[in-house]
Amino acid sequence: MPSDLGLVTGFQCVSCGREYPPDGALYTCPSCGLDGILDTRYDYDAVRRLLTRDRLEADSRHSHWRYLPLLPISERARLPLLPVGWTPIHDMTPLAQQFGLRAVYLKDEGRNPTASLKDRASSVGVVKAVQRGSSEITCASTGNAASSLAGQAVQMGLRAYIFLPAKVSESKLAQILIYGATVFKVRGTYEDAFRISMAAAERWGWYNRNSGINPILVEGKKTAGLEIAEQLRWEPPDVVVVPVGDGCTLAGIYKGLREMNLLGLTSRTPRVIGVQAAGASPIEKAFRTGTTMRAEPSQTIADGIAVGMPRNWRKALNAVRESGGTFVTVSDDEILDAMRMLARVTGIWGEPAAVACVAALAHLVERGDIGRSDRVLLMITGTGLKDIPSTLRAAGGALEIDPSLEAVERIMAREPHLAARRDK
Amino acid sequence: MPSDLGLVTGFQCVSCGREYPPDGALYTCPSCGLDGILDTRYDYDAVRRLLTRDRLEADSRHSHWRYLPLLPISERARLPLLPVGWTPIHDMTPLAQQFGLRAVYLKDEGRNPTASLKDRASSVGVVKAVQRGSSEITCASTGNAASSLAGQAVQMGLRAYIFLPAKVSESKLAQILIYGATVFKVRGTYEDAFRISMAAAERWGWYNRNSGINPILVEGKKTAGLEIAEQLRWEPPDVVVVPVGDGCTLAGIYKGLREMNLLGLTSRTPRVIGVQAAGASPIEKAFRTGTTMRAEPSQTIADGIAVGMPRNWRKALNAVRESGGTFVTVSDDEILDAMRMLARVTGIWGEPAAVACVAALAHLVERGDIGRSDRVLLMITGTGLKDIPSTLRAAGGALEIDPSLEAVERIMAREPHLAARRDK
Repeated sequence: MPSDLGLVTGFQCVSCGREYPPDGALYTCPSCGLDGILDTRYDYDAVRRLLTRDRLEADSRHSHWRYLPLLPISERARLPLLPVGWTPIHDMTPLAQQFGLRAVYLKDEGRNPTASLKDRASSVGVVKAVQRGSSEITCASTGNAASSLAGQAVQMGLRAYIFLPAKVSESKLAQILIYGATVFKVRGTYEDAFRISMAAAERWGWYNRNSGINPILVEGKKTAGLEIAEQLRWEPPDVVVVPVGDGCTLAGIYKGLREMNLLGLTSRTPRVIGVQAAGASPIEKAFRTGTTMRAEPSQTIADGIAVGMPRNWRKALNAVRESGGTFVTVSDDEILDAMRMLARVTGIWGEPAAVACVAALAHLVERGDIGRSDRVLLMITGTGLKDIPSTLRAAGGALEIDPSLEAVERIMAREPHLAARRDK
Repeated sequence: MPSDLGLVTGFQCVSCGREYPPDGALYTCPSCGLDGILDTRYDYDAVRRLLTRDRLEADSRHSHWRYLPLLPISERARLPLLPVGWTPIHDMTPLAQQFGLRAVYLKDEGRNPTASLKDRASSVGVVKAVQRGSSEITCASTGNAASSLAGQAVQMGLRAYIFLPAKVSESKLAQILIYGATVFKVRGTYEDAFRISMAAAERWGWYNRNSGINPILVEGKKTAGLEIAEQLRWEPPDVVVVPVGDGCTLAGIYKGLREMNLLGLTSRTPRVIGVQAAGASPIEKAFRTGTTMRAEPSQTIADGIAVGMPRNWRKALNAVRESGGTFVTVSDDEILDAMRMLARVTGIWGEPAAVACVAALAHLVERGDIGRSDRVLLMITGTGLKDIPSTLRAAGGALEIDPSLEAVERIMAREPHLAARRDK
């Protein structure tokens, strides 16, 4: 077994089920093509000996590298310097009370180095690229995957080539550019950007970080699931709610939660619930109607989950079905309301895709998909600082005044609610 | 001694030297007025018994509340939920090599709950406001002080009234608004906003979070200095470089470093160096010319240190002189260059005020203020996500292309440096 994959024993196609030996050059299943997403398999007996509760509790690395035996990376790999993962989980009593639930936890992925969950995948991607001898890496993205890749690539001395659709958040674009990535802004859709990035990777031999086809990336994302189990002291929540665009993040988190159970470190695996934006919900439709996924145009302010043609839909559907979870959709207005409410009740300001989980809570309670006795964890996948225009839409405006106390007095007299306690 | 001040024994005016007993209602020195900034004094014998190396090393609270005995807060105070402080310190070998120094450390304050160092002060401010029975709190700010106050206030159920000058970063404004603060945008300067916020606090009895007059706030900032000593295993660096606007942050960090020495936990106190923007450098001028501080109009892209009339200049001058440090100025262009360089060499993207420290390094080496044998720590006071327009100025642009591989090929052929390894 090639040592650069650590304890990986092979890959299995989630479409046709065929198994492949650990081979560095493999992206998708040779038989199924782009539809044949691979799943990484490990020698769990060997992992079990390395990742025990005692060893983990004694591990002082407060980053996701504490789970190296469960990553497709060898022990001696060079790692990026800035710590990724081990983001805080907050027990939010006010939210639990508001929704009548036993507990609501938030996992704040905005505390990652580039302020989103995508650092988990990108950090694994850049390590693997270096191990493979690449000095270039590429991806297509609507934002966080690219900005995290740019931020992780500089730490490893890699050059990043980023393909963006024409419509992209200014904050994310600025973040990608400041890291010195070469940015191609494609006059077209995300699909166009994805297609060109795939062709360019082939043409120039760049390492391909597209999580839609590279099975290594989802392994990075799964560390969020591993952490949930460990950080809640081996008592995972009953439900984990995850925003879903491509499906890769949900599939990854479920895999992490499942592996903790497989290793005997937890006694059960939570139900996993996927949240899609109403304007980009092909996976939710496939789940609800019991059919195969059909691509659709996407239309939502939540750019992080605005995916009309997801690549990992099969993995996401499998995860939700296997765990006894469900899918739900939320409107853009509900997302903006949730952003405002979450910030004002908890102090955590998430970007639209992140707070889609929060917006989903009311629906899930009403539908009976979660109930009074449930401990529910919401994945807050990125910070609100990533989307200022949506925040300004959600937040309301400032009061412009002339520079005098009298100007303040006039407003306070005219709008007495300003002097009353904040309503939530 | 009123129990809500913990181990505080009194306050001393930094201007006239007069001492006052611990009295909750005190902001500035009654004799000196706004010029009479107070310094908080503690019963260090009592603190020494509580804060030992052993006790600190066994303390699992990874936040600045681990230093409660050195804060003007009683043991039983209700604290905000989201952890403040204990931000990572990174040992950046590439920077040390670039500048020919023994070590360069970055303390990444962007990892705080609202992504800046100001959370340290605001979190102490909101705790104190609640202890004093206030349900409202106010400040004037050019950005981070206000956005951190807004984010900390919601966690304590306080209503925040924010006074901003007309010119304010859109990201910071959005952050303040999403937390539901009442925002008065004053048609005028920061000085106007400060004056009105002072008058409004008086008029409506709001708790006053302006660190320019409230001695409690600088105590929150000093935890950054306490952490530097502890996180570097009681071997503080030789030099700590801090961006300076009002002077309060530098004074606070120095106080923390000094107290660690006073408590016998470290064997020396670093030199503290203040960095001002060339377009807003009244404290640097006072230091250089040995005169008193004279207010000046401010003009710099670094909004976090764009203070023409600093309130804490005396504390900052004292700290720099006492520690054997110095002041230095940097231009806006140097700041933008430093933002780009830092992101590309280390993966850390700071806002203009934050990277002013980095911009100062070359000057300090050239002037001989720091040298080969020095271990230097730079305070990266806030994330680059807070200032997108400056980032876009620093970063360069994207390459717009038609949706085809040929379009990429044409650009790669035309600009061969794009295919070469990144130059830094």
